Amino acid sequence: MGTDDKPITPSRRRFLGGALGVAGAGAVGAAGGFGASKATGDDAQPVSAARTQVSLYGSHQAGIATPAQDRLAFAAFDVTTTDPMALQTMLGLWAAAAHQMTTGQPVGGTGSANSNPAAPPLDTGEAFDLDPANLTITVGFGPKLFDDRFGLADLRPAALKDLPAFAGDTLDPNRSGGDIGVQACSNDPQVAFHAIRNFARMARGTAVMRWTQLGFGRTSTTSRSESTPRNLMGFKDGTNNILAEDTGDMDKFVWVGNDTDQPWMTGGSYLVTRRIRMLIESWDTDFLSDQEAVIGRAKVTGAPLGGKHEFDPVDLSAKAGDGTALIPAHAHIRLAAPASNGGMKLLRRGYSYTDGIDADTGLLDAGLFFICYQADPEQQFVPIQRRLGQNDALNEYIRHTSSAVFAVPPGLSGPGDWFGKKLFST
Amino acid sequence: MGTDDKPITPSRRRFLGGALGVAGAGAVGAAGGFGASKATGDDAQPVSAARTQVSLYGSHQAGIATPAQDRLAFAAFDVTTTDPMALQTMLGLWAAAAHQMTTGQPVGGTGSANSNPAAPPLDTGEAFDLDPANLTITVGFGPKLFDDRFGLADLRPAALKDLPAFAGDTLDPNRSGGDIGVQACSNDPQVAFHAIRNFARMARGTAVMRWTQLGFGRTSTTSRSESTPRNLMGFKDGTNNILAEDTGDMDKFVWVGNDTDQPWMTGGSYLVTRRIRMLIESWDTDFLSDQEAVIGRAKVTGAPLGGKHEFDPVDLSAKAGDGTALIPAHAHIRLAAPASNGGMKLLRRGYSYTDGIDADTGLLDAGLFFICYQADPEQQFVPIQRRLGQNDALNEYIRHTSSAVFAVPPGLSGPGDWFGKKLFST
Repeated sequence: MGTDDKPITPSRRRFLGGALGVAGAGAVGAAGGFGASKATGDDAQPVSAARTQVSLYGSHQAGIATPAQDRLAFAAFDVTTTDPMALQTMLGLWAAAAHQMTTGQPVGGTGSANSNPAAPPLDTGEAFDLDPANLTITVGFGPKLFDDRFGLADLRPAALKDLPAFAGDTLDPNRSGGDIGVQACSNDPQVAFHAIRNFARMARGTAVMRWTQLGFGRTSTTSRSESTPRNLMGFKDGTNNILAEDTGDMDKFVWVGNDTDQPWMTGGSYLVTRRIRMLIESWDTDFLSDQEAVIGRAKVTGAPLGGKHEFDPVDLSAKAGDGTALIPAHAHIRLAAPASNGGMKLLRRGYSYTDGIDADTGLLDAGLFFICYQADPEQQFVPIQRRLGQNDALNEYIRHTSSAVFAVPPGLSGPGDWFGKKLFST
Repeated sequence: MGTDDKPITPSRRRFLGGALGVAGAGAVGAAGGFGASKATGDDAQPVSAARTQVSLYGSHQAGIATPAQDRLAFAAFDVTTTDPMALQTMLGLWAAAAHQMTTGQPVGGTGSANSNPAAPPLDTGEAFDLDPANLTITVGFGPKLFDDRFGLADLRPAALKDLPAFAGDTLDPNRSGGDIGVQACSNDPQVAFHAIRNFARMARGTAVMRWTQLGFGRTSTTSRSESTPRNLMGFKDGTNNILAEDTGDMDKFVWVGNDTDQPWMTGGSYLVTRRIRMLIESWDTDFLSDQEAVIGRAKVTGAPLGGKHEFDPVDLSAKAGDGTALIPAHAHIRLAAPASNGGMKLLRRGYSYTDGIDADTGLLDAGLFFICYQADPEQQFVPIQRRLGQNDALNEYIRHTSSAVFAVPPGLSGPGDWFGKKLFST
C-alpha cells in the first residue's frame, strides 16, 4: 500500500467516512488516504466539543509516555484473513478511527453510510456525547504475526519473541498472546470501551478479538503531575516508576533506538501484559507487619522500610539493630529494584481489575492487569520476572493468569500514516 | 439486639473500631453501639478530607433517590450462619463501616487492631487516599432470607417473592438471587469496589458472596442535575425516568408507604436487578432505521419517533401519512411506557457492563446491568417485564442472564441504627 498525497476532497471524505463503519471495506485500503482529519458522517447533529485530548500523532505512539489515565480497556486480536492487504486496510481504518475518537468525533459520523437509513450506523454510538477524556489508543504486534502468513518473517525484531515460562506461571492460553494488542486508556471507561468495540467491529472479516480486559483504576504514576495510586493490596504502586519527564530514562529504557535490528521499530517500544490475580482473601488475613515485609514498604505512607516518606531512597543495605536487613531478602521491592537487576528499569502502566467471582473457588477474581513498556523485554521484563517468579515473597498471594508481548511501532506522523505502515512498506 | 444509648467513650470506640476488621466479632453485636461516628483506627496517619459525600442517614436509604453516580459495584451474599445474632452483628458492622466509608474514613482505621502489627490490617487500604466521590451503599434482603433459618418467615412482605419466569429468560442461577443484596455506587470505581470487598471481608464466617457485578457507566438519569447517558446500544437511556425531584412520583411509585403489610418496610423500596446481555455484534449490523424502530426513538437526538427533541412527549398514537404508527407496535418505548402499563412507572438506576469474551461464542459479553426501584414489584416490574418479555422487538438483541429481587428497608436514623434493625426488632 503506497502513500497517497492527493488532497482529500469532500466526496472522497464521504466515501472514507462511510466505509469506516462497514465490514470488509477492502477497496478503501487499496485507495489509501487513511486519516481524514475530520469526522465525515452524513448527519449534521452537533457533537460536544472535546475538552481534553491527547494527539494520536507524534514520534512515539500515545499511551506510553502519556500520563496514565484512570481507566483501561485492552484487547488482543487474532488475524483471521490471509490477505496482507485486508490486514493493512484494517490497520488503516483503525488509524483513521483512532484519530476521530481521540478528537471526540464519532467513527465516520453519527449517521449511516451515505445517509441511507437502511444501512447500519457508522459508529456504535455510546460515546456520541462524551468527551474523549484523554483517550489514547496504542497498537502493537505479537510474535505470531511474523509467521509465514503475511511475509513478515524477516521483519520480526530479535527482541520480539514469546516470553519464556516463569516459575509459578498459571497462564490461561485463552487469555494470553494474540497477533495484535490494543490498549485504550481514557479517564472515561465508556470512551475506552467504545474504542475497543469499534476496532472489533471494523476488524470483522479480518481479525477477531481473542481476549479483552477492563481495568478500573490505574496503579502507576507515569508523570510528576500524578499522585501515586494504590493497588488492590492497599499499597502505593509505582512510586519509583520511570517518569515521562525523565527523558534520559525514557530513551534508555523505553524507546527503541537507532541500533535496532529492525529500523521500522525505531521510536517504538515493547509492551508486556500480565494479568496478575491477587488472592485477596488470603492477603487480607495476613498480618500488617507481614504484608509490609512482603512488599518492603510501609502500607500507609508507602515509605520503604527503614525510611519515613514515600519517596525516600530505597536503601537495600539498611539493617536493623540485630543485623537483619530492614528490607527482607525476598521483599518485592528488593527483587524488583534496579540495583538487583543490573540497573534495569521498566515503565509500568498497569490497572486494577475485577472480573467477578471465580466459579471454582467462590473467591473474588481481582488483581492487577500489569502493563509495562521497555526497549527490550529480553533485557528488562524477562530477567526481572525470572527473579521475581523464583523468589518474590509476594508469590504466595498472586497468580499470573495471562501473558502477552507486543512490538509497538513508533508514532503516526499524521493523517495518512497508520499503525505498522513502516513495517508493511519495508 | 436492643438499642444502646450509652455515650460512646474513647475506649469503647477503640474496641468497636478494632472489631470492625476482625471476622466473627459476635460479641460486639451483642453490645450494640454500632455506628461510631468517627474512624477509630490506631494509626494517626492523616486521611484526605472527603470532598463529596452523601450521608448514609435519612428516612430512606441513600443510593435510590441519590443522583446516579457514574460507577457501580454490586454484590449478592448468601448467609451461611444459622445464628441470627451473628447475622445481626454483621449487618451492624456493615452499617458502621458504611458510615466510615461514605465519609471518606477507612474501615476501623488505617492500622491494625490495637496497633498490633502482628494482626491483619483493619481496612484493605486501596481507598485510603481517595475521596468517597458520593459513595452510597444500599442494602436489601432477598426472599430466601425469610425462610425458617432466622425466624423471619412471618415478617416477609407480600411484595417480596421470587420473580416469576419471563418469556425469553436465560438466567444463570449462579448469578441470580441471594439472601442480601448490596449496591455500592460512587463516581470512583475503586471506592465502590472497596466497599463491596470490605463488606465481604466483614461477612467472613457469616455470609459469602454469591455473585458480583461491576458497572462502568450509568445508564439512567435520576435527577435534573444529570444529562441523559447512552447505553451500549448507543441510545440515550432513562429519558423519561422518575426524577428524585418528583416527590409525588417517588412517593407513589418508589417508596413503600404506611399501607404496607410489614411496617418495618415503611420508607423502604424494592430493588430488582436484571443482567441484560446485549448481542452487540448483531445489533451493530442492524440498519439504523431498524434500530430506531426497535427502540422507538431517534438514535442521535433521543427524540421519540414523530418528535424532534429528546424530551418531547412520547405520542403513542402518532401516525405516518399511510396510517401506520410512528412508534411501532413492538417498539421498546411503547411497551415500556406508563400508558401501556396502567400508568405504572419504575425508578431505573442501571449501569453498562462488560465482562470480557463469552467463551462459548467468542463474542463480547457486554450490556446493561438493569437496576430498578419500586414500591411493589408485583404491580410494577413484573407486569411490565411480562409485556416486554413477550413482545419487545428488542428481545432479538438481548438476553436476560441474571435476576434478583431485594426488599430494601428504610434509611438509617443515625449512629446506632443498622441495616434491618427494625426487621430484627419487630
